Amino acid sequence: MRRFITHKTRNLITSTITKTTSPISTTTISPLTAPLRFLSTDSMASDYSSTPITIDTINPKVLKCEYAVRGEIVTLAQKLQQDLKDNPGSHPFDEILYCNIGNPQSLAQQPITFFREVLALCDHPSILDKSETQGLFSADAIERAFQILDQIPGRATGAYSHSQGIKGLRDTIASGIEARDGFPADPNDLFLTDGASPAVHMMMQLLIRSENDGILCPIPQYPLYSASIALHGGTLVPYYLDEQTGWGLEISELEHQLKTAKFKGIDVRALVVINPGNPTGQVLGEANQRDIVEFCKRESLVLLADEVYQENVYVPDKKFHSFKKIARSMGHGEKDISLVSFQSVSKGFYGECGKRGGYMEITGFSPEVREQIYKLASVNLCSNISGQILASLVMSPPKVGDESYESFSAEKEAILSSLARRAKTLEDALNSLEGVTCNRAEGAMYLFPCINLPDKAIKAAEAAKTAPDAFYAKHLLNATGIVVVPGSGFRQVPGTWHFRCTILPQEEKIPAIVSRLTEFHKKFMDEFRG
Amino acid sequence: MRRFITHKTRNLITSTITKTTSPISTTTISPLTAPLRFLSTDSMASDYSSTPITIDTINPKVLKCEYAVRGEIVTLAQKLQQDLKDNPGSHPFDEILYCNIGNPQSLAQQPITFFREVLALCDHPSILDKSETQGLFSADAIERAFQILDQIPGRATGAYSHSQGIKGLRDTIASGIEARDGFPADPNDLFLTDGASPAVHMMMQLLIRSENDGILCPIPQYPLYSASIALHGGTLVPYYLDEQTGWGLEISELEHQLKTAKFKGIDVRALVVINPGNPTGQVLGEANQRDIVEFCKRESLVLLADEVYQENVYVPDKKFHSFKKIARSMGHGEKDISLVSFQSVSKGFYGECGKRGGYMEITGFSPEVREQIYKLASVNLCSNISGQILASLVMSPPKVGDESYESFSAEKEAILSSLARRAKTLEDALNSLEGVTCNRAEGAMYLFPCINLPDKAIKAAEAAKTAPDAFYAKHLLNATGIVVVPGSGFRQVPGTWHFRCTILPQEEKIPAIVSRLTEFHKKFMDEFRG
Repeated sequence: MRRFITHKTRNLITSTITKTTSPISTTTISPLTAPLRFLSTDSMASDYSSTPITIDTINPKVLKCEYAVRGEIVTLAQKLQQDLKDNPGSHPFDEILYCNIGNPQSLAQQPITFFREVLALCDHPSILDKSETQGLFSADAIERAFQILDQIPGRATGAYSHSQGIKGLRDTIASGIEARDGFPADPNDLFLTDGASPAVHMMMQLLIRSENDGILCPIPQYPLYSASIALHGGTLVPYYLDEQTGWGLEISELEHQLKTAKFKGIDVRALVVINPGNPTGQVLGEANQRDIVEFCKRESLVLLADEVYQENVYVPDKKFHSFKKIARSMGHGEKDISLVSFQSVSKGFYGECGKRGGYMEITGFSPEVREQIYKLASVNLCSNISGQILASLVMSPPKVGDESYESFSAEKEAILSSLARRAKTLEDALNSLEGVTCNRAEGAMYLFPCINLPDKAIKAAEAAKTAPDAFYAKHLLNATGIVVVPGSGFRQVPGTWHFRCTILPQEEKIPAIVSRLTEFHKKFMDEFRG
Repeated sequence: MRRFITHKTRNLITSTITKTTSPISTTTISPLTAPLRFLSTDSMASDYSSTPITIDTINPKVLKCEYAVRGEIVTLAQKLQQDLKDNPGSHPFDEILYCNIGNPQSLAQQPITFFREVLALCDHPSILDKSETQGLFSADAIERAFQILDQIPGRATGAYSHSQGIKGLRDTIASGIEARDGFPADPNDLFLTDGASPAVHMMMQLLIRSENDGILCPIPQYPLYSASIALHGGTLVPYYLDEQTGWGLEISELEHQLKTAKFKGIDVRALVVINPGNPTGQVLGEANQRDIVEFCKRESLVLLADEVYQENVYVPDKKFHSFKKIARSMGHGEKDISLVSFQSVSKGFYGECGKRGGYMEITGFSPEVREQIYKLASVNLCSNISGQILASLVMSPPKVGDESYESFSAEKEAILSSLARRAKTLEDALNSLEGVTCNRAEGAMYLFPCINLPDKAIKAAEAAKTAPDAFYAKHLLNATGIVVVPGSGFRQVPGTWHFRCTILPQEEKIPAIVSRLTEFHKKFMDEFRG
C-alpha cells in the first residue's frame, strides 16, 4: 500500500488546505471523492506526462461513479492504523474500529462450522474416504459434500460450471426458496453470481440504454446502486424514505418522483427496494410490500428487490417476506410482474463476505430477454464454485436430526441474538446524544442516526470544503478510531446530516464504543455549539 | 434447464427453416447469435406482453455483444447430451466431447494436490491444530496455510479484503513475478480479480468513452475482447494475424490498421496482445515483443497483455516472456509505457477455472488514474478469497526441499507433457485431412485449423442461414459428439473458415477423437465436394 496510501494521504491533506476546483465541470463532485482528483493537473501528474491515459481522458462515467463505503474516510482510517503500528501511542486510541462496512468476519465473527466443513471437503475431495476425516469433520458435512460433488459433472469443483451456476445447486436453492415462501421456485430462474453486486451490475447493464433511462432508488440508498447506475450511464431517480415514520416507503412519494422524472423526459425502467433497508435498517410491512408490487405492475416497472438481509431481522413485530412471495400471494404469476430478487452469502448470520457468493432469481422476463441475461452471464463464464456451494448451503442448512443441527442452531442463534442486543444498545446510546435521533435497526446491519449539527460546525465544514457529516465523521475517527460512513455517501434529504454505523463490533467492545462516542460527541458539540 | 433449453432449441430449429430478418437493423448480426432473436415479435413474446422489458427495449449494447464460446453450438451439444441421457443410443456416439472451451478439469484433469490442500485448510482453519490433520495433509501445505492465514487480518478468510486483494498475497505474487522476470514487481500494482475476465472488463470500462474509442485486437481473437468492447460501447479495431507465418503479428499490419482507424476518426487507445495466442496457439518471439512495445510507446497506446497461458508452452524453440520483462529489459521504466498484464488461475497446468482467481498488474498509470481503477475495484468490494489464495499459490508453488515438491513437480510435468503430446497428435491429424491446414499449438490450449470448404458446402450453409464454419461444426457435432467453436466466433480473414478445438480431452480418448474426426471429415467432403 505504500505508494498508494502515500498518494491518497497527500491528497487528503491537500484537499483540506487548497481551494482548487475540479477541471471537469460537468461531473458531479462529492466531498467524499473529489479530493482524489484535485492534483490531476499539477506536479504529480506531470511525471506521467508521456503515458497515454490521463484523468481527463478516461471514461467520464468512471469519474462520476462514487462508492463512499470504501472512500476517503476509510483511506484515512488505514493511514491511522499504519500510524498506530509504526508509533504505538501516536493517537488517543489503540485500535481502529471499522464500523463502515457490513463485514462481520473482519470484526471477529466466526464462520458457521458446518458451512466451512463442507467447503473444505469440496475443495479437497480426495480426503473424503480417509479414516482421519471422520475424526475431523461431522458426519452430515461429509454426507453433504458427497451430495454436492455428485451434483457437479465429473465432481470437478475446479471446472467452469454452467453460466447460471451448477444445476444441482440451483435445484437446492430453489427448494430453499420454496420452503421460505411457500410458492414454487424454478432453478432455471436462478443466476448464481460472485456476490450480489455483479448481479446488480448485470441488471443495470441490461436496463440502461442512456442517461434518459431512470432507475428509482431509495434515498438514503446503498451506494452500489448509484455507482452502478453512473457506470452504466443512466439516471438515478430518487425517492425519499420518510425518516419520521421509521424510514417509511410511501407510495405517494414513488408516484410523485415517477411523475417528476417522466416530466423531465426520463424513461423510468425499474424500482429498487432494499428490504431490510441499507443503510436505514427498516423492515417493510406486508401491506406496504403489496402496494409496492401494485405500483410496479401499474407503472410497468421492473422490481429490483435487494433482499440480502433477509435473515437479519431483530424485532419481534417485523418479519421478512420476499417480494416474490408477496406477488404470488396476491395472485400475480410469472407473466404479471417482472421481479428480480438479490441474495448474498455475505450477510445473514453467516456473513461470508470473502467467499463472494450470491444469486438473483429472475421472474417475469420473456425468453428472449432471458437469453440476453444468460449471454451477459456467459461472457464471464461462471461465478466461483465455492461461492456457489455456499449459496446452496445458506439456502439449505442442517435440519432437525442432522448431526450438526444443534451446534449449527446454537451458532446461528448466538450470532443473531447478539446482533439484536448490539443494535439496541447502540440505538439507545445514539438517541441519548444531544441533537441525535436514531430509528430502530429492525433488520440489516446498520444504524443511520440523524445528527443535528450546530451552524458553527456546518460553517467549519464548508471552510474545509467537506460535507458537514463527513467533517463530523473525520473528527470522530481522529478522536476515537471509530470509522463510520457519512450520510452524504448514501444521499439524504438536503440539509439533513447522518452517518451509517454498523452493529458489528464484538459485543464486549460495545460499551467502550458507546463511551468513546458519547465523550467525543459531547466535546464536538461543546466546541461547535457557538 | 428445461424451459431455457426448450426455447433455445426451438429457436435453433426455427432459425434453420425461416428467412426472417432481425427487426433491429442497426445491430451487427452474427450467424451464431442471431437465431436467438428471431422470435422476438411473434407468439412466444406475446405471452409476456404485459411485462415492462422486451428485447427491443433492452440496452442495444447487450444485443450487440457476442460470446461464441458458450453460444449456439454449445446449446445444441447440451440438447444432444440430454438426448443421450434420455434415450441412450439415439445418436451415433455415446458421449459429448467438449472441445469448445479451455476448461481442463471438466475433461477429468485433476487439480494440483498441494493447491487444494492449502485451500481446504484455509477454508476450515480450525482443523489446523488437530492431530488427524497431519495424516491427511502434507506438512508444507499445513505450513503454507498458517503463513497465508497470518497474512489475512484476523485470519478472516470470510471477510471482504482490501479491494486490490490481501496485501500479503499480493506480496507473494509480486515476488513470483520478480522471480519469473528478473525485474522488480510492486504489490501495489496488483489487482486481484475473479478470473481474468473481470479485469479485462475493468480496463475496457476505464478506457472506452464512446464508439469513437477504439481498441486494437488481434483477429482471430478471444471473444471476451469483442464482447467487452461491445458492452462498453467502443469500437474493435482489428489487426490480422498472419496465418501463413504461424499467426505472425506484423508491426506493419498494426500500423496499417491504426492509420485506417484514425482516418475514420477512431481514437485508438490500447492494443490487446494475447500471448500465447488464443485461439491461435502461437508464442511470440522476443524481437517481435520488443517491436510491439516500441509501437505502443511510439503511438501512445496502452498495452493490454493477455498472458494467462504463460505456463502453457509446448515447443522447445519458444519461451514465454512477459511484456513487462521485455519493456524493462529495453530500459523502459514505470513512466515510459502503460502496460497491463492479465493472469488467471484457470489456465497453466493448474486449470482451476471454477475458482475464479486471477490478477492484473498495472504499470505506467498516473496516481490519479490508479485511484479510478481502485474505485472500480472497490464498487465490487473484492474478489473471492479462495481465488486470491490460489493466485498466490500459482505464483509461488512448492520449492526444492519442500515435502510436496516432488509430487507437485510430477503432477505438473505429467499434465504439461501430456498436453504437448495431445497438441502434436491433434495437429498432425488435422493436417492430414483434405483441405485442412493447421499451425502448431506452440502454447495455450487450442488448435485453430483452416478448413478449405467446398463451394457446395458454402452454398448449403448460406441456404441454412449460417456461417460455413458453423455449418461444418454443427455437422461435426451431430455426427461425432465433438464440440468445437466455429472460427466466425473469433473473427477471421473474410472468406476463410476455421474452428477452434481444445487440446484438452483425456489423452486416452485422443485416438478415438482423431478417427471420428477423420471419418466425419472424409464423409463431409465427399458429400459436398460437388
